Amino acid sequence: MKKLIKETDLQQLFLDTRNRTRKICEPLLIEDYGPQPEKFVSPPKWHLAHSTWFFEEFVLKAYDLSYKEFHPDFSFLFNSYYNNLGDRIKRDDRGIMSRPSVSQVYQYRYHVDEAMVKFLQKSPNQEIRNLIELGVNHEQQHQELLVYDIKYILGNQPLKPVYGRQFIPDRIQGDLDWQTIEGGLVEVGAKGNHFFYDNESPRHKVYLNDFQICSRLITNGEYLEFIEYGGYQDFNLWHDEGWSFIRGNQLSAPLYWVLRDGIWYEYHMNGLQPLDKSLPVSHISFYEAFAFSQWAECRLPTEFEWECAAPFINHGSLWEWTNSAYLPYPGFRKVKGAVGEYNAKFMINQMVLRGGSLATPPGHFRKTYRNFFYPQERWLYCGIRLAK
Amino acid sequence: MKKLIKETDLQQLFLDTRNRTRKICEPLLIEDYGPQPEKFVSPPKWHLAHSTWFFEEFVLKAYDLSYKEFHPDFSFLFNSYYNNLGDRIKRDDRGIMSRPSVSQVYQYRYHVDEAMVKFLQKSPNQEIRNLIELGVNHEQQHQELLVYDIKYILGNQPLKPVYGRQFIPDRIQGDLDWQTIEGGLVEVGAKGNHFFYDNESPRHKVYLNDFQICSRLITNGEYLEFIEYGGYQDFNLWHDEGWSFIRGNQLSAPLYWVLRDGIWYEYHMNGLQPLDKSLPVSHISFYEAFAFSQWAECRLPTEFEWECAAPFINHGSLWEWTNSAYLPYPGFRKVKGAVGEYNAKFMINQMVLRGGSLATPPGHFRKTYRNFFYPQERWLYCGIRLAK
Amino acid sequence: MKKLIKETDLQQLFLDTRNRTRKICEPLLIEDYGPQPEKFVSPPKWHLAHSTWFFEEFVLKAYDLSYKEFHPDFSFLFNSYYNNLGDRIKRDDRGIMSRPSVSQVYQYRYHVDEAMVKFLQKSPNQEIRNLIELGVNHEQQHQELLVYDIKYILGNQPLKPVYGRQFIPDRIQGDLDWQTIEGGLVEVGAKGNHFFYDNESPRHKVYLNDFQICSRLITNGEYLEFIEYGGYQDFNLWHDEGWSFIRGNQLSAPLYWVLRDGIWYEYHMNGLQPLDKSLPVSHISFYEAFAFSQWAECRLPTEFEWECAAPFINHGSLWEWTNSAYLPYPGFRKVKGAVGEYNAKFMINQMVLRGGSLATPPGHFRKTYRNFFYPQERWLYCGIRLAK
Amino acid sequence: MKKLIKETDLQQLFLDTRNRTRKICEPLLIEDYGPQPEKFVSPPKWHLAHSTWFFEEFVLKAYDLSYKEFHPDFSFLFNSYYNNLGDRIKRDDRGIMSRPSVSQVYQYRYHVDEAMVKFLQKSPNQEIRNLIELGVNHEQQHQELLVYDIKYILGNQPLKPVYGRQFIPDRIQGDLDWQTIEGGLVEVGAKGNHFFYDNESPRHKVYLNDFQICSRLITNGEYLEFIEYGGYQDFNLWHDEGWSFIRGNQLSAPLYWVLRDGIWYEYHMNGLQPLDKSLPVSHISFYEAFAFSQWAECRLPTEFEWECAAPFINHGSLWEWTNSAYLPYPGFRKVKGAVGEYNAKFMINQMVLRGGSLATPPGHFRKTYRNFFYPQERWLYCGIRLAK
Repeated sequence: MKKLIKETDLQQLFLDTRNRTRKICEPLLIEDYGPQPEKFVSPPKWHLAHSTWFFEEFVLKAYDLSYKEFHPDFSFLFNSYYNNLGDRIKRDDRGIMSRPSVSQVYQYRYHVDEAMVKFLQKSPNQEIRNLIELGVNHEQQHQELLVYDIKYILGNQPLKPVYGRQFIPDRIQGDLDWQTIEGGLVEVGAKGNHFFYDNESPRHKVYLNDFQICSRLITNGEYLEFIEYGGYQDFNLWHDEGWSFIRGNQLSAPLYWVLRDGIWYEYHMNGLQPLDKSLPVSHISFYEAFAFSQWAECRLPTEFEWECAAPFINHGSLWEWTNSAYLPYPGFRKVKGAVGEYNAKFMINQMVLRGGSLATPPGHFRKTYRNFFYPQERWLYCGIRLAK
Repeated sequence: MKKLIKETDLQQLFLDTRNRTRKICEPLLIEDYGPQPEKFVSPPKWHLAHSTWFFEEFVLKAYDLSYKEFHPDFSFLFNSYYNNLGDRIKRDDRGIMSRPSVSQVYQYRYHVDEAMVKFLQKSPNQEIRNLIELGVNHEQQHQELLVYDIKYILGNQPLKPVYGRQFIPDRIQGDLDWQTIEGGLVEVGAKGNHFFYDNESPRHKVYLNDFQICSRLITNGEYLEFIEYGGYQDFNLWHDEGWSFIRGNQLSAPLYWVLRDGIWYEYHMNGLQPLDKSLPVSHISFYEAFAFSQWAECRLPTEFEWECAAPFINHGSLWEWTNSAYLPYPGFRKVKGAVGEYNAKFMINQMVLRGGSLATPPGHFRKTYRNFFYPQERWLYCGIRLAK
Repeated sequence: MKKLIKETDLQQLFLDTRNRTRKICEPLLIEDYGPQPEKFVSPPKWHLAHSTWFFEEFVLKAYDLSYKEFHPDFSFLFNSYYNNLGDRIKRDDRGIMSRPSVSQVYQYRYHVDEAMVKFLQKSPNQEIRNLIELGVNHEQQHQELLVYDIKYILGNQPLKPVYGRQFIPDRIQGDLDWQTIEGGLVEVGAKGNHFFYDNESPRHKVYLNDFQICSRLITNGEYLEFIEYGGYQDFNLWHDEGWSFIRGNQLSAPLYWVLRDGIWYEYHMNGLQPLDKSLPVSHISFYEAFAFSQWAECRLPTEFEWECAAPFINHGSLWEWTNSAYLPYPGFRKVKGAVGEYNAKFMINQMVLRGGSLATPPGHFRKTYRNFFYPQERWLYCGIRLAK
Repeated sequence: MKKLIKETDLQQLFLDTRNRTRKICEPLLIEDYGPQPEKFVSPPKWHLAHSTWFFEEFVLKAYDLSYKEFHPDFSFLFNSYYNNLGDRIKRDDRGIMSRPSVSQVYQYRYHVDEAMVKFLQKSPNQEIRNLIELGVNHEQQHQELLVYDIKYILGNQPLKPVYGRQFIPDRIQGDLDWQTIEGGLVEVGAKGNHFFYDNESPRHKVYLNDFQICSRLITNGEYLEFIEYGGYQDFNLWHDEGWSFIRGNQLSAPLYWVLRDGIWYEYHMNGLQPLDKSLPVSHISFYEAFAFSQWAECRLPTEFEWECAAPFINHGSLWEWTNSAYLPYPGFRKVKGAVGEYNAKFMINQMVLRGGSLATPPGHFRKTYRNFFYPQERWLYCGIRLAK
């Protein structure tokens, strides 16, 4: 995270990012900003406010003496998980907050943006600039979650409304094709002057065996074969926990697949569509990705294999489940204070995903980027790549 | 329910009722129409649509051949609990429905109102007129629930917003004063040509002992004495279930009471106010009403005692918990079909309340009216009257 | 509860009762004394100790100065629900108590019995004798629960072991036959010098319409017709709660019915037997009894109808669900202190059963006896009688 | 698992192992064999039967044509988690099985032992001998779980009974002392002719940085300092999940610590004892081990660091939590069929422990041995070793 960013670039980056968040919400009705259909979903209104709160709390209230707080209660309302910063409302209760209204939240954004632009003109020092850049990256992460959450909110409406033509994957061309990668002692992780999160470092050595990796993602058509074979009925393919998960939740297909009168449909941002076999399969849990790999008599790559193979494979439309647990790199040290809560405290029981998705903001792709989710989570833009 | 209502009166009644529902929602923001903070709360939008659905489903689709359905999916979306009318969405999921939008729902109301007015001009027969009158009474019941739900939604906002100056109880004057009522064989229940629900009939004889009943409700001040005595800590005052209920939910005061820095406040429709000891205590569960009565060395009246005492007591600001379980009257028969689901299927595990509240629509008061709620419910406008 | 019992009779009654409890447990293995398969079941060992604890706590420790406590921790271990007597272990944790051992518990019984016999020889006063008689009745109630619990423990073993030939109902002879009872103002409830519980009094007047009541219970064969008609699939027959209950728990037959290869079996104390259509149907919830009555186009009697009809009907093999909620009689007053916790605090959300069962101890039948259980409970010896 | 064991050695190993299981249970009362206080605990009776079932199912029924099954239902009753072998009773319901009795289970063991000894004399081939050796190792694993479960059952009795003088850790001597281990490319995992589980192989290369590891475990005294500092109140030391875990379960000390009147006690197999500060701290979750390491400004070792450091450190009294997730080694392949369910399907969401404990059977220690438990589990014999 030690990096040099020029002031003018930073202001542009800040404004572009703030603007992009707003654009993502443009197709929404006021009513769509509020619901929290599941605990893991946050209402769009909350994302809008929380990403703003980060700048207000960590930058303006901390370093800008002339700053006037927008509203005394917002700090409490829009803190997400930073225990160091005091109480916060329960995560599950975000969907009941009809107030502040959407328009108040946009006023809050406007208020903070204005103050930030003024503050940036005062030439803040490198440490503060780094913090602002972290805030930008934080908002970019929320942009991606915002897309997941909007899709989940709209996709779970009985009426299956249309969002627009954005955030829909492209078809995959060509057969499964294996890339052979030579192993040995390699270096992985981030280092240098560009932005990266603490969890991507320290750069360090790992030893890899030779391996093969698929040059493209698995398609809906291939996943359908797995379903039709009876993949969801054959416990030998599953982790014990995965088996409990699909049985307990009565799952038999990816998240947005719908079977109506014997025909499969898939909900996309442009509404419910007949299943397109050429699209990459998406919105599957780690458990399902793993079971598919077992059925295909392959496996999922590790995160380090993925990192080494990155230059040779086609990626970027969906995050890819790896078989690596999310753990600290050798020599990793948690930063003190609230910012240190950002990544380190989640390093248990989650799996690493690599590669980025079409919901990932531009400039947020990095081959060392470690995304992480619980193995049962499905609402993210994720897919399957095989290795062996 | 066999009653004679003139056509012109019915149209007026219909329009007044529809209008009143809309009025209740006037102070709301779009955002307030959607949330469902607890399973027992319905979003205002849902009330608006569901009360409309009743007329569309039971009247227009059944009897008006020229009627054009507003939207093919609304029947599924806004059915509440009528199993006879097919599938419906899970009650707990009402809060995630951002679509249809609030404005679509108002269009739905407008569409149905227009059709109803035309239909009413075609002189429907007595049976249909009775059904429409039931629909009006159904909507009036929802008006009352709408007030409870709006209060719950706003009262649970961290920012405690103001709704307006309506639906706030008046202060109580005077000391506790006992009315002695002579017992004997009396008749209770409804009979005749006016509107009443099936559960109020048949009119029948019951034998009552002599009893005394309080001429007014219990005040906040009196309830505060109970709290300060340690009423919430003394299990001897409680039902076993009531004790589990208050311990399990860590309750120590009525629903909308808030203790801040040692001072009690109460949320009313005009925001958070310092506790007013002269107001009637409200929003207490049956368990709390019962425990209070034990502490006062009295008891709650039965529903039949209440009915006999009605002419002698001051009532109408809050529903009054009785110690009667909600059960069928002797000779009661459930009506066949969906309308029969209205009342009968709830005749288990609920307690009767009598008297009406300031959230009760005008013309909806009746001394034979049997309201019923689960003993743990607190969000209704209810209070305590003692007997002995 | 104010009654006169002679000292010599009391001693005999005490010893007979204590002896009978032991006899009920005779067929058990040590292993059968411990399990608690469901929250509502108590391990037999617990019944043995708890009924003993009653005498130790309320009689010996209170009135016998020479008494030496058996073990200082037993008071805590074997208190059931008397909050007035201090802490107790959680009800759900009874099944994990491997210690004290079964033999220690029998020693405890022996120790208390010996002390009680000595104490009874000291001519305790009337008040104490009443307390001892209450203890005897308390133990008799536990004898009945003990039979339910033993049946539940053994009947839920995968191997379906045999207990013996006791506690198995007899076949029913004859057709459904209706008894007409004339209504009017009648007296119900207990009064006088014999033993009865506080909840059976005060004796008071109620007004009954004329009614008809079935002279015998419903048989397995009749209930099977209800099942085969599709009774468990027709929501119109059920309370809303009952419908949720059977759907949520996937119920489609009485508790101990088992369907194997298309043939119905029923578990009895003598093991799994082919379903006998002439036996009374048993182990059904109130919800099921009610739904059956709806299907038969009848209803369940009220507890007062039952009490009036008692001389004219054949009863005593199974408790009979009534459509009366368990509530206090007019003028009922809760006794102060721990004994007052006996009945009053359960007067909410339970339904009254009348009549007694073949698990009911001799001398424990009384036409004013009010048994009460939650509407979903099925492990008791209960059956269905129709009225109309 | 490909290994050569001589027939005579195998018979001796078999008999010794079977005998040792019985010995572990010797101090138990019949009543102690049955309870299942928590889902993760199995009743001792179940261990006795299940470890026997393994030999009956996989060896005798598969390869010994002359074998007569002990009881047709035991296969169903004592299958643990092998989905390939058909239905099984729910894991949570083991505690309600009072039948078969303890003595029947001992007869079952005797019956199978006798058959096994005869079968072993028929010179089974290498494949079968390997299977029997796996069965022996399986039973040894259950011996260790048996100790955990016995401790949990007895330690959760209100009366805190004594088991005996076995399975109590020794005091630790000496200060914290750091061993420096040089990193580089090293080989880890098992290979060769001795017995090991599939999850320990393939042996493979990993790259390690230089690191320091503590030569002994953390003591109760050191852990008490952590508690007294306020370790359970400082969320900065915890994983987000760990923090939820200790808050949700209101934990503030290791599993068997008890605070009475301000004095700490610890339950050991010889009863409740005043806390001995020189004993190694035990029965802490991974979360607690991690939080302690953060407080000590150190970390937990990885499983590969541990494996390399094994020759230099004092271990064997308690399993040691590592910061490695339980995942397959490169090139790992799951065996087909039921035996393949042994390890592979658990490779998600669990953490690796290394080193063995005083509950580990002799001959079951191996520096490549990978034990694995969920991060919240505490009833195992586990402790804390620091690295940095």
